[in-house]
Amino acid sequence: MKSSFAFRPLALNLLLQLVIVAGVTQADEGMFPVSEIARMKLTTLGLTMDPADIFNAERACLVDGICRVNGCTGSFVSPQGLILTNHHCAYAAIQKASTKDHDYLANGFVARNLADEIPAPGYNVRITESFEDVSSRVLNVVTPTMSFLERTKAIEKQQRALEKEAETNHPGMRAEVAEMFVGERYVLFLYTFIKDVRLVFAPPSSVGNFGGEVDNWEWPRHTGDFSFMRAYVGRDGSSADYSPDNVPYKPKRVIKVQPQGVNENDFVMLLGYPGRTVRHNTASFLQYEQAVRLPFVVELYGWQIATMEAAGENDRAVALKLASRIKSLANVEKRSRGQLQGLHQLKFAARRKAEEERLQSFIESDPQRRARAGNLLSEIDSVYKEMAAQGQLELTLKNLTAASQAMSLAFSIVDSVHERKKPDLEREKIYGDKVFNQTSKTFFLQQNDLHLPVDELMLAEMLRRLAALNAHQDINAFSPILQSPESIEAFAKSSVAATKLGDAEFLKTCLSLSPIALQKVDDPFVKLMVELYPTYLQLREKDKDREGRLSRLYGELFNVKREFSLAGQGSTGVLVPDANGTLRLTYGRVEGYSPVDAVYKAPITSLTGMLAKSTGMEPFNSPHKITELYAARDFGSYRFKDKNDVPVAILYSTDTTGGNSGSPVLNAGGELVGLNFDRTFEATINDFAWDHSYSRSIGVDIRYVLWITEKVYGANHLIAEMGIH
Amino acid sequence: MKSSFAFRPLALNLLLQLVIVAGVTQADEGMFPVSEIARMKLTTLGLTMDPADIFNAERACLVDGICRVNGCTGSFVSPQGLILTNHHCAYAAIQKASTKDHDYLANGFVARNLADEIPAPGYNVRITESFEDVSSRVLNVVTPTMSFLERTKAIEKQQRALEKEAETNHPGMRAEVAEMFVGERYVLFLYTFIKDVRLVFAPPSSVGNFGGEVDNWEWPRHTGDFSFMRAYVGRDGSSADYSPDNVPYKPKRVIKVQPQGVNENDFVMLLGYPGRTVRHNTASFLQYEQAVRLPFVVELYGWQIATMEAAGENDRAVALKLASRIKSLANVEKRSRGQLQGLHQLKFAARRKAEEERLQSFIESDPQRRARAGNLLSEIDSVYKEMAAQGQLELTLKNLTAASQAMSLAFSIVDSVHERKKPDLEREKIYGDKVFNQTSKTFFLQQNDLHLPVDELMLAEMLRRLAALNAHQDINAFSPILQSPESIEAFAKSSVAATKLGDAEFLKTCLSLSPIALQKVDDPFVKLMVELYPTYLQLREKDKDREGRLSRLYGELFNVKREFSLAGQGSTGVLVPDANGTLRLTYGRVEGYSPVDAVYKAPITSLTGMLAKSTGMEPFNSPHKITELYAARDFGSYRFKDKNDVPVAILYSTDTTGGNSGSPVLNAGGELVGLNFDRTFEATINDFAWDHSYSRSIGVDIRYVLWITEKVYGANHLIAEMGIH
Repeated sequence: MKSSFAFRPLALNLLLQLVIVAGVTQADEGMFPVSEIARMKLTTLGLTMDPADIFNAERACLVDGICRVNGCTGSFVSPQGLILTNHHCAYAAIQKASTKDHDYLANGFVARNLADEIPAPGYNVRITESFEDVSSRVLNVVTPTMSFLERTKAIEKQQRALEKEAETNHPGMRAEVAEMFVGERYVLFLYTFIKDVRLVFAPPSSVGNFGGEVDNWEWPRHTGDFSFMRAYVGRDGSSADYSPDNVPYKPKRVIKVQPQGVNENDFVMLLGYPGRTVRHNTASFLQYEQAVRLPFVVELYGWQIATMEAAGENDRAVALKLASRIKSLANVEKRSRGQLQGLHQLKFAARRKAEEERLQSFIESDPQRRARAGNLLSEIDSVYKEMAAQGQLELTLKNLTAASQAMSLAFSIVDSVHERKKPDLEREKIYGDKVFNQTSKTFFLQQNDLHLPVDELMLAEMLRRLAALNAHQDINAFSPILQSPESIEAFAKSSVAATKLGDAEFLKTCLSLSPIALQKVDDPFVKLMVELYPTYLQLREKDKDREGRLSRLYGELFNVKREFSLAGQGSTGVLVPDANGTLRLTYGRVEGYSPVDAVYKAPITSLTGMLAKSTGMEPFNSPHKITELYAARDFGSYRFKDKNDVPVAILYSTDTTGGNSGSPVLNAGGELVGLNFDRTFEATINDFAWDHSYSRSIGVDIRYVLWITEKVYGANHLIAEMGIH
Repeated sequence: MKSSFAFRPLALNLLLQLVIVAGVTQADEGMFPVSEIARMKLTTLGLTMDPADIFNAERACLVDGICRVNGCTGSFVSPQGLILTNHHCAYAAIQKASTKDHDYLANGFVARNLADEIPAPGYNVRITESFEDVSSRVLNVVTPTMSFLERTKAIEKQQRALEKEAETNHPGMRAEVAEMFVGERYVLFLYTFIKDVRLVFAPPSSVGNFGGEVDNWEWPRHTGDFSFMRAYVGRDGSSADYSPDNVPYKPKRVIKVQPQGVNENDFVMLLGYPGRTVRHNTASFLQYEQAVRLPFVVELYGWQIATMEAAGENDRAVALKLASRIKSLANVEKRSRGQLQGLHQLKFAARRKAEEERLQSFIESDPQRRARAGNLLSEIDSVYKEMAAQGQLELTLKNLTAASQAMSLAFSIVDSVHERKKPDLEREKIYGDKVFNQTSKTFFLQQNDLHLPVDELMLAEMLRRLAALNAHQDINAFSPILQSPESIEAFAKSSVAATKLGDAEFLKTCLSLSPIALQKVDDPFVKLMVELYPTYLQLREKDKDREGRLSRLYGELFNVKREFSLAGQGSTGVLVPDANGTLRLTYGRVEGYSPVDAVYKAPITSLTGMLAKSTGMEPFNSPHKITELYAARDFGSYRFKDKNDVPVAILYSTDTTGGNSGSPVLNAGGELVGLNFDRTFEATINDFAWDHSYSRSIGVDIRYVLWITEKVYGANHLIAEMGIH
């Protein structure tokens, strides 16, 4: 990380006050902001490199070799912008590039040279360049007389304003103000932003997704979940849209790939962009998740997945179209199931409630503190109780515009037409001038996947669910539609038959209309959405009102918790910020665990184990070439120590969540020995709490990555590009 | 074992020639006849008792404390005939004793004194008293001109004749001629036979069947699968039917219960009555199992279980009625699935084929041997090919009289009426004079479980399957019924409505009729069965013909395999007789295993682990009392060494199969430290082959048995009766 921004050292100082690093242990909860690394005593845990070479505000360092690839993480593994990330992170790119005749999901893809590389529309890469604490500038806009809705809008607007200011000062970069602690701490991050990303190498799904949904969120694992992509920039080195004239991006730092891999008990650390955790939330939030939201998601997504799988069963083209959606729904569905199971089994809500009772006693032990904070917990409680009470209707309405792609597109049209009329800084973030180009691309990509027969099923089902909730009593637009099962069927059928939302020109036209002109558009989905829009605006404002209340309450709660912690009573862990898509470091060891009584899971799997699992039937259908090479014991230089075998996947006790997909697993010397891609089923609960006994992350072993790349697919040029041999 | 029979030492000598004990290892394939114990060098493996005290023809020994309880094994654990066996072995007794008001399956049962003990109709207990090799006397009846059908019938008749002779010489005892090696070796066993068996103590199913079908055939396990029963005899000590005047049986030897249990790596041995293995069968048999019979069973039983579960869902009385059948079908269904998986994954058929190719080369290497045995394997092959070709129809017909209880009763009536007309020794075994009383009791017990609504579903489904196989083309009796789906429905409906088979008097009358009189019985099932009977006779004769062919072929193959083995080329394991329901010893160690890559399963589970699994929902609903005692850490003297916990189940590398249920797990001193009740899923394949890497048996730890008995249900009188404290 190298930067000319004067505020970098300052940022360090400010952040240092946030995080209290707990006693040094072999593995610990925490997705630490990189600003904390200097204080983390990683050397005593086994780190052999200079910690100042992981993150350094003054010169190029390890984090300069790490990038965010859409919602995932990647590593630059060559000076030519070659990125190593997960197969499932590149999945949408592989899917878009695939046709019936060139089915790269089924057969894999190898670009033999730069010219063969395939553009990945919708992909971008960002590299953290600097950060600055802007809490006071953000919170300054809040006045005591504001409503909670106004509070949320003012904070959002100020975040956008600060981003705009930073981007004006640093042309070509992307700025983002991230909330580190709700209502309390805000940090401005500046990113290099690359828009031309291409697919370089992807193994077939039978490698990259070996085990599929059966093995997803499970250990032991035998998935070769990796792909290579490449970042391109204009000839002058600046960020540019795709052009054949673009040239590979030259990263400030290359992550060294270590072909010797890692061993059991070794120290490892991950750098990456974990997406979202909610560990500071109260017991009443956990109760809402356990009783309302997670069961809703598990049930609805389960139904959607089954419906789409049935639709694609006898038609590979339809299956390809729906593959990415099914995969992402299945991922969330199983994670949610794991979280539900964890919440029930580990009695998280009750345990957090007990912690809060101790905190409440602490609050009440001092009259001033009591006056200031005595009602915080009960006020937070009342927000979640309201969410629980209105949960079924709100979740069903929100999922109507997610389940039906036509409804989703219609919402995007109506919403963007209205939002784009507002001053830039007052819009919902995705409609801001700086990102709208990117946002509108996603609309057209989504349109590609629109499959009307499935959409009709989704729409009818969501309408039936709304009817069961008596939604038409409150929402006029639904009145005629939700009258009876027959009227629902008829509406779904006729709308899907009549809609023009599958037409790119139509979509483009709609997006360019004024709100008034939109009312005259003759499309059943657009018509319905124009009528429903006030309902959705109401939902959004209700959310922002709650967000405003929670922002104030959690901001104050954070301060009390800090006092509690400094008084030696609270857990110090509460002072590590939740994951929020910004750069973090986590560390641990390569180690197994015991998920249940009398079962121990060891931390390294093997090719032998993978072949024992291979049935020849999807998702356990490894390519024939692997069987051949295995039979010949042709393992190149990727043998596992003294064993005549190749290690496939590794397990380690780091603290990760979604967004850490593709994170490099680094050894004590900062060399890449694996690629993070998943967590164990028990560790799905990480989003709520981390524990050394069950929280394990899963990565593909670099030796397997290299063996597949070199031996199975003969991509020796990539091996050479990484400087391996 | 104490006996006055002169032939006991002789038997020893003869059997010794059969089994070649392989090199001494820590655990080994083999369900060894007790005659082999003296040669097995158990002392070098860790046995601390005198091997001559396990089995001794001259004086009371350990095997005198072991009994067969119906199809299970039990141990005499007090001088008052108290038997310790599995909950699932006592299940039918508990079920029969249960009513809506006294639901002993749900609540458990404790007899506070002898008078409270509940008779277990249909149960009997046998104790092995002696054995004698009678191979030459059996095979003497075979003449060269006999057809294969005649051969089978002659051998069966001679077996019955030898049994009758022995029972005449030893009044009150039960004799059985067991085939040790097909067509080659026959041994006459004499048993003490006890007909009055009573239920003494059963934990509720939430303990005795904790984990239910979910955990069945799985490890780790937390099932308290034990019950106490008691054997009763007449006042003069002789076997007698149930009478309130009967007195507890006094066993010649009591198995000492060792409350300190066992530790990891300890030597253990089991004595018991393993039911049936088929390890000497050829690759073509495995092929038949894999391609025809097992898939048929898995599919059909799966359907039957689902149908019965649906029927009992909202009616506890119906559920109770069907519980035992569901349990036994589910057990076979899952075992069959495990076997199918093992056959596929381990490629057993191909491996056995390769062994047979080596054997064939050995046969062909000598012209004389070739002349004598050159075609044996191919002739065996042709029998199984014939079975495979006719498998669907034959299996469907056989399952028609198993799936429908009314059809089953009708068959029993027609078959017994015909068989009972024959001379005693020529009948099918179950209709012989000595056992018919017992056999007919099972008819009436089965009648108790007849549930006509479910029977109608079963009947219609089996008829639909026969129609799909075009059975009516060959079987006239089916012609009008199998015409159309409607005619099937109509027949099933009207037959179930009209049948009198639910009436005990009617059943009794039918059983007493002559074949001619039977033809006039006005019951739709009896009428159909009278017409179908020739078809079933044909099936039986076809089976006997195949049995005759296989008997001759396998008998000759055995001799060749012995030569092969003595020539140092074949596996010595082939010379250990298959399980056949006679007394056997197996040994191994308490040890874990690795079922798949990166997973290790440890051999002892704990109460802590059991409670972690408890959800409060069946089958994971442990009684509240257990939770209470656990919370209070009230573990009595049943703690697991240094841990503040009670061990629940244990895993060990012995060689077991069905029939070993209830077998005592004995420590090196011959003391009871557990009760065998299951195998791991991987070990379902034991019936075809045993391997140290995956074959593990599962038992309940004696400390859990005693803790439940004493602490949870306060049956201190049983603890005292076992001499514990």
